[in-house]
Amino acid sequence: MDHTLKAVDEELAALARDVAELGALAVSQLKDALRAFAQRDAELGREVAARDERLDALDAAVERNAIRFIALRQPMADDLRRPITAMKTAMNLERCGDLAKNIAKRVGKMAEAPGQAQAEAIADLGRLVAERLEAVMTAYAARDASGALEVWARDEEVDALHDRVFAEILACMSRDAGQARVCTHLMFIAKNLERIGDHATNVAEMVHYQITGHDLSGRPKL
Amino acid sequence: MDHTLKAVDEELAALARDVAELGALAVSQLKDALRAFAQRDAELGREVAARDERLDALDAAVERNAIRFIALRQPMADDLRRPITAMKTAMNLERCGDLAKNIAKRVGKMAEAPGQAQAEAIADLGRLVAERLEAVMTAYAARDASGALEVWARDEEVDALHDRVFAEILACMSRDAGQARVCTHLMFIAKNLERIGDHATNVAEMVHYQITGHDLSGRPKL
Repeated sequence: MDHTLKAVDEELAALARDVAELGALAVSQLKDALRAFAQRDAELGREVAARDERLDALDAAVERNAIRFIALRQPMADDLRRPITAMKTAMNLERCGDLAKNIAKRVGKMAEAPGQAQAEAIADLGRLVAERLEAVMTAYAARDASGALEVWARDEEVDALHDRVFAEILACMSRDAGQARVCTHLMFIAKNLERIGDHATNVAEMVHYQITGHDLSGRPKL
Repeated sequence: MDHTLKAVDEELAALARDVAELGALAVSQLKDALRAFAQRDAELGREVAARDERLDALDAAVERNAIRFIALRQPMADDLRRPITAMKTAMNLERCGDLAKNIAKRVGKMAEAPGQAQAEAIADLGRLVAERLEAVMTAYAARDASGALEVWARDEEVDALHDRVFAEILACMSRDAGQARVCTHLMFIAKNLERIGDHATNVAEMVHYQITGHDLSGRPKL
């Protein structure tokens, strides 16, 4: 392998490593935010929020290195897919981190405890979403197109569970106006979890596209 | 001017035109969504939602052309800023379009009319946010760094008004549990407007960065 090809390979591998690290951080931020919520642990919530900077910095590094790679190496067609999907995957993972941070910050703001049924509904949705995010990052690391396709195809399970959780919270709110404040936090937490699920679906599309060149989304791509 | 320089200039101008068009569309989608909300016009809401595809397509075109420009022209430093900010500005504007679409779709789902005080609070917030988005696109078109700086510096006005609107809706919900459903729609509409305001702030940072090379956000950039 000549010198330039080796450098190109090393740069792409470094990008993939950073994206994988960002993905692992996003998963652990989400799990810790959910633990902070379940245990009403405001201190852990603050720790999660404080750790978000690391995800922002990694996302910025991936973007910088991907753009530098494109400008210096002038890759065409297939070879262009890898830096671009790295950049867009990082962006989606960074957004997952923001949403986990928002959940974590709400823990400290919830003066009253949520009802048990509502808290369990959130926990169920959280588990499903965390499992999806983890599965898509496993597919990313293994360059496993069918693993990515599976996460993508099961997109609607998160939406369906979100809708059930939302109905549960709305019913609680409609029964008891005194629960309006705490239920509002629960609704935004549920919405944030649904949005993390959407980002996992986006990442699944990108992983699949990077490996196969086939676009699942039907959206115009490169 | 030699042939290549002229082509580079034309490509950058075409990118800027597409971004400006996307910005104009995002502003008009937001205004129409707000009009649909104010007039409880579900048909207009559906039209806004249907028009969102055009924004997605323009965003995809800007991204494709920016990446192609970087790969073919290998711009360095200052010249790299323009395609990158075009791409990121387009992404933020496309997200504004999604949020306007979400507002528009809620109009058809609100079975009951919101209270007058709450509807007016949303209208006020909407007007402020639309004005900011319009101002930042004017600064973009005029390459006006101080105009962008002004939008950026007044970021907190949107957040402060959002918090007042939110308190108003929460109070209504806490008084009357029967309002839970309609007030939940209002809360998500208010949150969507706040997020459009955040995107306008992001665009202001990018416009300022593109013109001056100075980063307002304190985040790591190129």
